[in-house]
Formats: sequence, structure tokens, C-alpha cells
Amino acid sequence: MTQPSQPAAAKHPAWDTVAIVGVGLIGGSIGIDLLRRGLAKHVVGIGRREESLRAAREVGSCTSTTVDLPRGLADAHLIIVCTPVGRIAQDVREAAGFAKIGALITDVGSTKGTIVGGLDRELPHEAHYVGSHPLAGGEKAGPAAAVAGLFEGRTAVVTPGAMTRAEDVQTIKTFWQSLGAKVLQMTPSEHDQLVAGASHLPHLVSAALVAATPPASLPLVAGGWIDTTRIAAGDAELWRDILLSNRANVLAALDRFDGELAKFRQALEKDDAAGLTEILRDAKRTRDAVGS
Amino acid sequence: MTQPSQPAAAKHPAWDTVAIVGVGLIGGSIGIDLLRRGLAKHVVGIGRREESLRAAREVGSCTSTTVDLPRGLADAHLIIVCTPVGRIAQDVREAAGFAKIGALITDVGSTKGTIVGGLDRELPHEAHYVGSHPLAGGEKAGPAAAVAGLFEGRTAVVTPGAMTRAEDVQTIKTFWQSLGAKVLQMTPSEHDQLVAGASHLPHLVSAALVAATPPASLPLVAGGWIDTTRIAAGDAELWRDILLSNRANVLAALDRFDGELAKFRQALEKDDAAGLTEILRDAKRTRDAVGS
Repeated sequence: MTQPSQPAAAKHPAWDTVAIVGVGLIGGSIGIDLLRRGLAKHVVGIGRREESLRAAREVGSCTSTTVDLPRGLADAHLIIVCTPVGRIAQDVREAAGFAKIGALITDVGSTKGTIVGGLDRELPHEAHYVGSHPLAGGEKAGPAAAVAGLFEGRTAVVTPGAMTRAEDVQTIKTFWQSLGAKVLQMTPSEHDQLVAGASHLPHLVSAALVAATPPASLPLVAGGWIDTTRIAAGDAELWRDILLSNRANVLAALDRFDGELAKFRQALEKDDAAGLTEILRDAKRTRDAVGS
Repeated sequence: MTQPSQPAAAKHPAWDTVAIVGVGLIGGSIGIDLLRRGLAKHVVGIGRREESLRAAREVGSCTSTTVDLPRGLADAHLIIVCTPVGRIAQDVREAAGFAKIGALITDVGSTKGTIVGGLDRELPHEAHYVGSHPLAGGEKAGPAAAVAGLFEGRTAVVTPGAMTRAEDVQTIKTFWQSLGAKVLQMTPSEHDQLVAGASHLPHLVSAALVAATPPASLPLVAGGWIDTTRIAAGDAELWRDILLSNRANVLAALDRFDGELAKFRQALEKDDAAGLTEILRDAKRTRDAVGS
């Protein structure tokens, strides 16, 4: 990950009050950066458990916290919904019901088609919502895992739907850029298709690799296995929801992956050194181009 | 990786002269530790290209180098063959032909069945050879990648064959322990079976995952894909030889992996949230137990 730069605090904060619904790794890290970079005067952390909110205050991701959604949203100009992907649509709907007139809402869900499509149909016309997905995270979760600079140099995807206002899209793009992210804009369905290969298939493959490792092999694992299976330590319920909410694209990605495995199998079965070299070289070339 | 401790130099070096055939990442790192820990007075680096040998001298992995195998081996009490797995058997045979009487030879090859089995049959009775495999390495290769402490806290597997002398096995175990490694002893065929799941399948899966990633998805990759595919940047020819030399075990590991993927596919196709949770939880539990 790129080392975060230490930006000077903005003289005029972009936001007076930002409310973050769900102050885990992503929500908490957003709060830390909003405050450290002087981008917001007040960050209100909203959660369901007092214990999580205390942890969020301790890492400095909020200036105040509450379990009371209407109270937490009362003064917010920007509302960021950072709850697990299976709850986001409902949480955005609720937030829209309590938000001030003109308040802008975004979310950070890992899939966008179902969320943005549903909200396009269901949100009242006066609500301002833009879907987004910052490509950051890790196998650690929870308020205490929040860190400064999580989005620096990373990509944030903004996914307007049919009902999204262009000026709101621009504001949310600027918001992610202010946290150091590079912004890509695409439709929710494009996003879900691309992220199936970039993120959801790797998770599934990583977990399957752990499952396929016989217990007797575990004392012999080294750096390769450790790296390849790291994300299998991610939260099971979170990933279940992500995979199910992008089912069709994940299954299509799995088909492609099965096809690549079949090429490996064939080369091994035929003792085809040249074919195997070609497969490994192509993968190395692509991987080298992406870098660390 | 465990942080290497800084051992005091031994007062009486365990070895007067150690010859390392192939001073890349593994061979070079052995040389560095032998010298830094005072375990050897002289480390002779033997290679085929003057350029590699110069790099080895520059990182401090040898006290002298040569491209002349007989000269390099003339004074060696311990000979460590660290060439690519496809060349090891031949290189051990050659080394045995030039070695002093009583000199002990080991290798660091990632597969052991073919190498140890062949050498059991082919080496003259007076030769002293013990197969071993330190589970260390990385996607970087070459003499300049050699580092101190590479084996500290890692596992080294020692794989005696039918002709291996027990006292030689003990000496090689002590050798790896002196570099900080935990030593496991098993037969070459046990080793190859276990390492197929712990190392060779992960490499194959990692490369297949890169190949299955559509170019359009690459701008959206983040930490998960980066970690899961890191080893796909490994040297293609090296890995081709490893996979081919352990073909039957790799194919069996691939069968197990296909079975795990099929469970994922079925759960996704059936929209089976409970089944998916169970698969992900089991993988998380195993992965958490291994740690980083």
C-alpha cells in the first residue's frame, strides 16, 4: 500500500458535519482522515453497540457517537453508510428518512447493482444518494482496526444509478479524492462484473485453497500459502453477503477460473513443459505489471 | 516472517569450508548466515556466470567464488546444492565426483522423491548425501535477493532415502537448526505429498487466478487480489520444473481443490446462505489457526 502523505489541514473544512453509520474498518478510517485532514469539523459515529462506539472514539474516528440514528443524522450534511453489504439498502432508506433536506448520502458497499438499483426505485425523489465503493480493506475488521491513510493511492469507484444527480456524483468524487483516492466512475452493473474478478473470485479461491489443504500439510506451509490464503481469514458473514449479492457475476468468474485450471491440468497430465511454461509466463507477466 | 535474532558468532566454527553450488536467494542466504553467525570460516560460492558470483560477493554470501566446480569443492567439508530443481540430481552427482572423502552433500530442492530416489540408486556407496528442503523463499530470486535470517523460525524438512546414513541425517538436521530453522524429518514421498498441498497447489491456483482476471478488472484489484496472486510473479521455469517433478501429487491436490470449488459453486447456485457461511467459517477457522 502507498504510504499516506501527511496533508496540511484544510483551512476551510469541506464539511461542517459528517455522519458515519457503522464505524468499523472502513467507516472509522474515513472518520480519522476527515478529522486529521481538516475536511470536517464534526464527525458523528452512529452504531448499534456502545462498545463499538467507544472503540471508535478511542481511535479518533469521531468527534461524537450515538446509537440514536435520528439524533446522529440531525445536523449531517454528508452521511456515509458503512454497514455490511446485506444491510446497506435498508440503512440508506432509513437514513434518507431522517436526513436534513439537501443532505447527501453515500455508501461503501462491495457490490452495487442490487443496492443502487433498489434505491433508485425506492428512495423519495428529494433524497440525494450516490453509490460508491472504495477498494480498500483487509482481513482485520472492526472500529479498532481503523487507520489513517487507508484510501491514499487506492481506487474508489462511484456508481451513479438512473436517478442520481450529476452534481451529487461530482461531490462524492471530490469527497473520495480528498481522502487521497483515485476515482473511477462506472455503472453499478459494470462495477459488479469487474469486481467479481478483482475481489470476489480471489476470496472464494483463497477459502477453497484453505479447505483443500490437508491438515498434515499445514506444518509445511510457508510464504506462498500464507499470502495466497490471507483473505480467507476475512469475516464469514460479510463475505457470504458479498458473494450472494453478486452471485451471477461470481459464478461467471468461477467459470473462467475453472477454464484456466483445466489448462493447467491438461499441461500437467500431458507432461507438457512448453505449455506449462507459457501459462506460468503469461501469469507472471500480468502479475509483474500490477506490482505490489 | 519471524524476525531473525542476532546470534553471537560461534567461537569454534562448526565448519571450516562450506561450498554452495548456486548462490541465488536460498544459497546466498545460507552463505550470509553461515558467515554472520560464525558457523563457517570459508564459504565458497560456485556458479556458472561471473556476474552472479560478483553479486553474491557483493551481498556478503561467500568469502570466495569460482566457476570451476572441482576447484570450488576441493576443500569443502559441506556442499550445499542450491540449483533449480530440474538440475539438482545431476549437480549432486557431479559434486559427489569431485568432493573430498567424507564430505557431506545436501540440496535444497522443493521436491524430493525423484531427486533422493535417483541419487539413492546412482551415487557411489562412499558418497554422503542427505536431501533437504528449507521452506523459505519468495517471489524474488537471484544472488542479490539473498538476506540474513531467511531460515529463522521457518521449517526445514530433511528427507533421508534408503541409503542415507543416520549420522549424516543428524548432521544436516543440526546444520538447519544452526540457521534458526525448525527441522522436520520425513520420507521423500511423504514430503512431496504434503508439499503439493502446502506449496505447489497454491502456486498453480495463484497463476490461474491471474489468468482468470479480465484486463478490465485489473484497475479494480486491491489487497485481496494482490496477496492472493503474489506468488504468480515467481520464476516460470523454476515453477514449471517443480510442478512437473511432483506431477502426480499436484494433480491429486488439484482434484481436492476442484472438489472444494464445486461446494462453493453449488452453494452459490442454490443461493444457500447457510452452506456458504459454513464453508467460509471453516476456512477462516483453519486460516486463523495458522496465523501470519
